[in-house]
Amino acid sequence: MNFSLHPRLAADCHPLGTFELCLALVMNDARYPWVILVPQRPGIREIIELSDGEQTQLWRESSALSRAMMRACGGDKFNLAALGNQVEQLHVHHVVRRIGDAAWPTPVWGQGAPVAYAPEALRGLRERLLAQLPNSFRAAAAPP
Amino acid sequence: MNFSLHPRLAADCHPLGTFELCLALVMNDARYPWVILVPQRPGIREIIELSDGEQTQLWRESSALSRAMMRACGGDKFNLAALGNQVEQLHVHHVVRRIGDAAWPTPVWGQGAPVAYAPEALRGLRERLLAQLPNSFRAAAAPP
Repeated sequence: MNFSLHPRLAADCHPLGTFELCLALVMNDARYPWVILVPQRPGIREIIELSDGEQTQLWRESSALSRAMMRACGGDKFNLAALGNQVEQLHVHHVVRRIGDAAWPTPVWGQGAPVAYAPEALRGLRERLLAQLPNSFRAAAAPP
Repeated sequence: MNFSLHPRLAADCHPLGTFELCLALVMNDARYPWVILVPQRPGIREIIELSDGEQTQLWRESSALSRAMMRACGGDKFNLAALGNQVEQLHVHHVVRRIGDAAWPTPVWGQGAPVAYAPEALRGLRERLLAQLPNSFRAAAAPP
């Protein structure tokens, strides 16, 4: 069985690029800087289904992404979560929170409707994130 | 500065015990098996404020706890999150979810009022969890 991205994640997100293990996707919701990591392993629903080495790699990539997002976007708090109650493919949310943002101080899930990025805003976020990510991160093609 | 547990976490939870790095606390909400890990380091708000070694240790303990919770309690999905928008001291939620539970399929935060454990139910959960946790876990005293 080969890895393929869940169609719901593909529909809700823009590709940012790939770490060694994970795909990085920007959630198409301009209300918050929000990036999802998806380990490229087929059939995985839970973190504990990854091998110990894969878990270590996931958290290394999560840490690099978290630092890059806070540097690139600023913010007051960082939220990290692996939920997957609706989309079972393992995916880990990384969200920069700001006091007074659309959901503050509650979690972002299920709060109002997403606001799609304008192309220019998405390009700007992409460039700011890529400038902070490690050299080993392979960027996806720029959006049109 | 020494580590001390945030009074809100102390008020909302029962102590379960300690790993090498983290305190483990049972959230006093019998609707879901819900354990919180708190790294015993003072002044830490974000995972990326821990050293690389401490992050590795946090995720090792999180993985051991997650396996123990799923073995001890069964369940359909596991939810993991570090939010901290309301209680800034770094704490990582671990929640066993069941299809049809009080918040399913949404996240558990902000869904209705917690249901405090009856003493017998809390003792039962504690015993089931301790039976699945590694020998290095130091159990807190049993509740009265």
